[in-house]
Amino acid sequence: MLEKIIFLGTGAGMPTKERNVASLAVIFNGGGEFWLFDCGEGTQQQIHRTGLRLSKLKNIFISHLHGDHLFGLPGLLATRGLQGIKSSINIFGPVGLENYLKNCFDYSRTHIPYPYHIHQIEKEKFLAKRLLWKKDDYSVFCAILNHQADSFGYAIFEKNIKRNLLVKKLSELGIKPGPIYQTIKEKNQVTLEDGRILKTENFVKESINSVRICYCSDTMFSKNAVILSRDADLLIHEATFSSQEKVEAEQSFHSTIEDAIKVARSAKAKKLILTHISPRYHRSTKNSKIWNTFHEEANSQFPGIILAEDFLEIKI
Amino acid sequence: MLEKIIFLGTGAGMPTKERNVASLAVIFNGGGEFWLFDCGEGTQQQIHRTGLRLSKLKNIFISHLHGDHLFGLPGLLATRGLQGIKSSINIFGPVGLENYLKNCFDYSRTHIPYPYHIHQIEKEKFLAKRLLWKKDDYSVFCAILNHQADSFGYAIFEKNIKRNLLVKKLSELGIKPGPIYQTIKEKNQVTLEDGRILKTENFVKESINSVRICYCSDTMFSKNAVILSRDADLLIHEATFSSQEKVEAEQSFHSTIEDAIKVARSAKAKKLILTHISPRYHRSTKNSKIWNTFHEEANSQFPGIILAEDFLEIKI
Repeated sequence: MLEKIIFLGTGAGMPTKERNVASLAVIFNGGGEFWLFDCGEGTQQQIHRTGLRLSKLKNIFISHLHGDHLFGLPGLLATRGLQGIKSSINIFGPVGLENYLKNCFDYSRTHIPYPYHIHQIEKEKFLAKRLLWKKDDYSVFCAILNHQADSFGYAIFEKNIKRNLLVKKLSELGIKPGPIYQTIKEKNQVTLEDGRILKTENFVKESINSVRICYCSDTMFSKNAVILSRDADLLIHEATFSSQEKVEAEQSFHSTIEDAIKVARSAKAKKLILTHISPRYHRSTKNSKIWNTFHEEANSQFPGIILAEDFLEIKI
Repeated sequence: MLEKIIFLGTGAGMPTKERNVASLAVIFNGGGEFWLFDCGEGTQQQIHRTGLRLSKLKNIFISHLHGDHLFGLPGLLATRGLQGIKSSINIFGPVGLENYLKNCFDYSRTHIPYPYHIHQIEKEKFLAKRLLWKKDDYSVFCAILNHQADSFGYAIFEKNIKRNLLVKKLSELGIKPGPIYQTIKEKNQVTLEDGRILKTENFVKESINSVRICYCSDTMFSKNAVILSRDADLLIHEATFSSQEKVEAEQSFHSTIEDAIKVARSAKAKKLILTHISPRYHRSTKNSKIWNTFHEEANSQFPGIILAEDFLEIKI
């Protein structure tokens, strides 16, 4: 089960006192497994400041190969080895990722003592949204966004089957509410005290809950981001600039708060979290007016919108 | 003038909650300039936690290309550019450094908007100690150490001319102690109240103070380290292991505390600081006995020996 997310780095371009560079942890099953989205320099140090352990890290998704999303990856993978972890890991990202890692490991003579599988995404192979990976109840889709470098958005889809008991039908058979109801829900077949055998499928109605998290960074406004995050329970979208810096945002292929909100609205996303914030808007910058303007804009216009901070935790 | 050093990372191999990976800042002239020795991942974030600014960083010396000494370099150089810094920088290190950086910058499409000069040290070109760089009052020597990868030790030599007044000679001319003595010391020529002109060179004796800092990491016991750190005012030497782990130290080409002390003693270094400490000896590890043994050993046997910690500052 998707449990929560923790923002490990929410700044753009370079680390500051206030925000580290990009990384997001998505945590499953009471911390039994987690995934990373982007891995800027210092991500492993940020992980130390949470309760997460690298032994539980199973998948890493790199949006694009700019340094503020990438430069923490070789060190994190090396540390995972030095910690004696033997379990394998998947790493997804644009073409070039494999050679980048190979070079880092070759020059630094780093040996990775566990299997790591690099899945490079070729942008030519799809138009908008594509299934990237699937295991058990989880599917990850990706879509090419709109940035200077090939940049991918990712969406996690959780198939969560819920069983609702057909209470009326059970009552008609004289089976009264009690612990037996939970047993029927959990098992495929139940033998009652009087010897009768019930097949669960005849006494439940199954419904599928889909929890979707969508992560889009870095990009300017992108129709693919809308397609990818359609009906998402949670959209995490970059908002490097305030809407006043529209021109600068376009020049650098980044989004303004307005762009992020436009994606969320068009996709009918239920919740929007803004991340990848330019250092100019940090709280600790000298010009607090700039911060206030950004903060005010971020906190309006979309219900339940959140401006991310490092170590912000959101339950799913 | 060499002013102080700040340890930015004092751990070995991987960052922990307690120690970041290798980096040392050497600060000159009231913070007007600083140099880095090694640049493990997260060095730029550690710098944020000091009063240092990347605009004042002029030289970087990389001991060897293992990740825990290197992986912070691409990000730090990129940030220096994003901060709008235009001044040039020198980077010294083993052969391979240039291609490593080139690959990182190519794959991440990082543009460095200031001149950076990479000086690769070819180990074949010298036997033990060699002048690497010289400017104004500073010379840096290097020597090849004894590690799995080509690893260099560095020594900073400061030519610091001190003027001692020839008081007897001044007295004979009837010039009595007072503010005039300081004036004579500071200027090349002084006109006295009675019109007499004194040329300073005739009334001072100049002596040269040499302040030497020597940084040796990573290496097992190395005669070259002894040659490089001869008579050093301060030797910073790796001590990855306690002397009980002698075999493991040798297998991994690292030093024990005993090895570091042997170098300091043989070189007649005045002060010894141990760094590059294995995570097993960290204070926060579960087995406090191991930490205590290490700590006790580190604090004996050599007068004034110091076990480095992150952010430890030592005045020169």
